[in-house]
Amino acid sequence: MQLFWTPASPFTRKVCVAARELGVWNRIEVRPTTWTLDWGYKTPKFTAGLAEANPVARIPTLITDDGVALGDSTLICLHLNELASPRGLIPEDWLARQRMWSNFAVADGVLEAQVAMRAELLRPEHLRSEDFLDKQRERIARCLDFLEYNAADLEGPIDLSQITTGIALGYQDWRDWLQDFRPGRPNLASWYDRFKDRDSMRATEPRETPTGD
Amino acid sequence: MQLFWTPASPFTRKVCVAARELGVWNRIEVRPTTWTLDWGYKTPKFTAGLAEANPVARIPTLITDDGVALGDSTLICLHLNELASPRGLIPEDWLARQRMWSNFAVADGVLEAQVAMRAELLRPEHLRSEDFLDKQRERIARCLDFLEYNAADLEGPIDLSQITTGIALGYQDWRDWLQDFRPGRPNLASWYDRFKDRDSMRATEPRETPTGD
Repeated sequence: MQLFWTPASPFTRKVCVAARELGVWNRIEVRPTTWTLDWGYKTPKFTAGLAEANPVARIPTLITDDGVALGDSTLICLHLNELASPRGLIPEDWLARQRMWSNFAVADGVLEAQVAMRAELLRPEHLRSEDFLDKQRERIARCLDFLEYNAADLEGPIDLSQITTGIALGYQDWRDWLQDFRPGRPNLASWYDRFKDRDSMRATEPRETPTGD
Repeated sequence: MQLFWTPASPFTRKVCVAARELGVWNRIEVRPTTWTLDWGYKTPKFTAGLAEANPVARIPTLITDDGVALGDSTLICLHLNELASPRGLIPEDWLARQRMWSNFAVADGVLEAQVAMRAELLRPEHLRSEDFLDKQRERIARCLDFLEYNAADLEGPIDLSQITTGIALGYQDWRDWLQDFRPGRPNLASWYDRFKDRDSMRATEPRETPTGD
């Protein structure tokens, strides 16, 4: 398999952590991409091969062993989960699975808000909207409060909601324009303090994407 | 089940069409939402119950029969697909499933670009970016060209990629600030001309969301 990748994207990190936890990372060839800093508000120059494989032209994009391009981080995780055996990152129990996906969607909503803020901050200053940034900050706060309230769900065997939550919290720590998530959220803080030390998390700590300029 | 809903959202329409095609629509109680027109760039006043159920505060949100909130249209479709029997909207064959998800992610990328344009157009005029709108238009054009090229994949039993493609094309027709997708794409045009007449599509034609003002 091939993975169009950057070290900054939390959605790409989701795939990288999932692949490591599933034991299939060694089957993936990484194809680094570069992104000029105008990607947030205009069509950038794409890394060779990316837009041809996936016309959405976004990372992560996985090319499967069958040569099919999957251009959505959640669908890539589903695919890797099906490849791995015996157990995966999605609970088999009906109710446990629903709760996992419920929390997953909330954590994924944090990633979306974080990336939306990043894109907004890359716009020319006179086109930036403070209201828009506030909207995303408020969404992130609501979601983190929800995850704090449901922190007991983060215990137990590792799953996709834990991975996505861990990455959301890691991104919150990485970007200096995002707030410390810990005040008022002791359960998340204590859980993340353990989760971040997993090999899969340590091996995928975020770094700035090369701009290729 | 309960579905937080609006008639304008293409992501919500995806769930509504899927539920109808799966024969589970009659098990869903619709909870209409209202959205003030500033939703694109600031936190709007949410319909009662929405942000409490799903802190991302977005539609569609499904409350399952077990009382779990699912706040992502693709995950909702997965859930409904598991509920329905005997056959669903996701191919069982390994390669066919990959190709379905590949096309699905491209069509879903069109929906995202369409909604991103809508949000941009709702911003105060002095904060709008023509470059951003162009970026989305270019993404949509690349994705529609890809779907045209792979139009043969749209034949066969209905699946989630067909539904998402049909909704993307329907949205393109609905909004006067989007271009006619037909020129240069005869296969998509001919396929959509048949697909749009399905009962599930006719019953879910888009309309403006009430603003609740």
